[in-house]
Amino acid sequence: MLMNSKLCLLRCANNCMLLDCSPVFRRQQFLIRSLGGGGGIDHHTNYSSGKMQSVEVDAENIIRAITPALDSSRHKGQAGNIAVIGGCREYTGAPYFAAISALKIGADLSHVFCTKDAAHVIKSYSPELIVHPVLEESYNVREEDKKMISSKVLAEVDKWIERFNCLVIGPGLGRDPFLLDCVSEIMRHARQSNIPIVIDGDGLFLVTNNLDLVSGYALAVLTPNVNEYKRLVQKVLSSEVNDEDATQQVLSLAKQIGGVTILKKGKSDIINDGDTVKSVSIYGSPRRCGGQGDILSGSVAVFLSWARQHIEAAGPDSNLSCKNPTVLGSIAGSAMMRKAASLAFSNKKRSTVTGDIIECLGKSLEDICPASS
Amino acid sequence: MLMNSKLCLLRCANNCMLLDCSPVFRRQQFLIRSLGGGGGIDHHTNYSSGKMQSVEVDAENIIRAITPALDSSRHKGQAGNIAVIGGCREYTGAPYFAAISALKIGADLSHVFCTKDAAHVIKSYSPELIVHPVLEESYNVREEDKKMISSKVLAEVDKWIERFNCLVIGPGLGRDPFLLDCVSEIMRHARQSNIPIVIDGDGLFLVTNNLDLVSGYALAVLTPNVNEYKRLVQKVLSSEVNDEDATQQVLSLAKQIGGVTILKKGKSDIINDGDTVKSVSIYGSPRRCGGQGDILSGSVAVFLSWARQHIEAAGPDSNLSCKNPTVLGSIAGSAMMRKAASLAFSNKKRSTVTGDIIECLGKSLEDICPASS
Repeated sequence: MLMNSKLCLLRCANNCMLLDCSPVFRRQQFLIRSLGGGGGIDHHTNYSSGKMQSVEVDAENIIRAITPALDSSRHKGQAGNIAVIGGCREYTGAPYFAAISALKIGADLSHVFCTKDAAHVIKSYSPELIVHPVLEESYNVREEDKKMISSKVLAEVDKWIERFNCLVIGPGLGRDPFLLDCVSEIMRHARQSNIPIVIDGDGLFLVTNNLDLVSGYALAVLTPNVNEYKRLVQKVLSSEVNDEDATQQVLSLAKQIGGVTILKKGKSDIINDGDTVKSVSIYGSPRRCGGQGDILSGSVAVFLSWARQHIEAAGPDSNLSCKNPTVLGSIAGSAMMRKAASLAFSNKKRSTVTGDIIECLGKSLEDICPASS
Repeated sequence: MLMNSKLCLLRCANNCMLLDCSPVFRRQQFLIRSLGGGGGIDHHTNYSSGKMQSVEVDAENIIRAITPALDSSRHKGQAGNIAVIGGCREYTGAPYFAAISALKIGADLSHVFCTKDAAHVIKSYSPELIVHPVLEESYNVREEDKKMISSKVLAEVDKWIERFNCLVIGPGLGRDPFLLDCVSEIMRHARQSNIPIVIDGDGLFLVTNNLDLVSGYALAVLTPNVNEYKRLVQKVLSSEVNDEDATQQVLSLAKQIGGVTILKKGKSDIINDGDTVKSVSIYGSPRRCGGQGDILSGSVAVFLSWARQHIEAAGPDSNLSCKNPTVLGSIAGSAMMRKAASLAFSNKKRSTVTGDIIECLGKSLEDICPASS
């Protein structure tokens, strides 16, 4: 009887047109979970309706599986060394939010590579970050010096790049053409070294106009919001966003870019790598204060690094059905962001700001995955 | 008979002109310890296995013995005036962590000598610190001005140096050759004035390549982590790290550098001055966030100053068997860091960052050694 109800509900869910937005679907999913749906650690993409549908994933189990055990014999850096490429004359908050979130999730070291104008300010937000004032914007560079300065920027980043477990490219990057040219080169170097890249904000502006930077790179995660997603769809699929067949469209998009992972932010976050489509719908917060995307990108970077370590260590013994670290990291980052936002909102209500959410990352992770052994 | 020998040796020690630097005094101290001097507040090195073994020390008793009583009649500076030499364009967090830790342990005054680029940022972290923007990096200095600027830097530091109870050299120092040349000169001046020096981070890079800076200086403490230790062993002993006979190797290393104290950081911290080998294994925290070494260096600096005061004041009446202030300061700093890290971790778990640990220094010291009389 229970099984029948479950199957019936799954069918209803699969027939639902506006999958992610529908309160009916959310309620159905709750019932499915209550009925023990899935059985495994995470659920699978459901193709039975003819259209592909994303299926809510058990993100908390994924977080528990990939988060490394803490152990006194470990050394600095083993729990993650993350770098954010972003921060210019105009923006300083975004790279700070991304970088400090990485530390609060549990990374050991968090760097920011930004312009000189931004560096003093970002440094002053927190002594916990290592901030490198190495990027340059056009207004500060003469035409004849561009080549030399570009090489210098690259050399400064290259000193460090092999040490990083993941780069976050885009928070507060701005759109200065010279700066974006340098960042394109940094991305090429990261790719040569097989370093995962999470791309958000102005980083998405850059790759939308230069798809070769990520095309075919399985260690890239794109985290577009509604507008950034719209531009990507227009550019890559030469069409408009299709909300009625959202899952199929995001799948086509990831396939078309050669198997990158796309974390499409929305009421539910849809995560796909051109193969599987998952959703994370844990209730977050109705506040939409700026900066939450930066928390997400920093969090995804850490979880992606941990997922990669987990998969390398566990190999076929991993009890996760999904073995793609960029998908696992995206799911975990999405869930963590939502849990922390919910906790912050319960404390601060309408006055919740991004810093409040960051302060809740530790407690949210601890609730899911206690650190003490 | 033993007592007579011991008293005789103590008298010799008290008559020694350069008390802390004299090899004679150091040998005497070794004999005193061999004769069981002090009554055993801490345990002794264990030779019984043929190999020398480090022995866990009662660090809390040492902290209680050397921490000065608070008294309304005391003046500003008497509880310690510490200076951190570090902070450059790239790094600002590390010197801040070291300097603020010194204050939070109980020093009265804490200075930072850094580059101009770093000074504004470090000042912005806290109004509690006195920050001197006097160091210069090569990119800011023309070849023909180097000599003049170097003299100027030295003159600025010399104005202050005699007032300091201890220097911490290295947190966030960077590796700029001109800056390191200036810092080498500062170390020579400190040494001439018998001012203790704690060396960490890039300061260790400097002394590993210029051993004469510390060789034979009994008031120097080196605090290497795994990688820094490896480089020291390769340079000084022309061999690789031997984990199977770690105690003997660290002892040889300290002897070879002429009796400096080495605090080798690890799962247990191993402290030795070429004579005795002690370990501190109090449980700390499994978090390895960057900056914890800076807390340690600032803490060792304060405890070293207090240990020196204690030994000068108590003389033979001190109930500590070990009379080397650099060893006592290292033991106390190591234990304090571990206690504070443990407390911070119990509150913040995976999201513990270095600032959280610093906030726990005061409570940790108070638990061991209550201030109220």
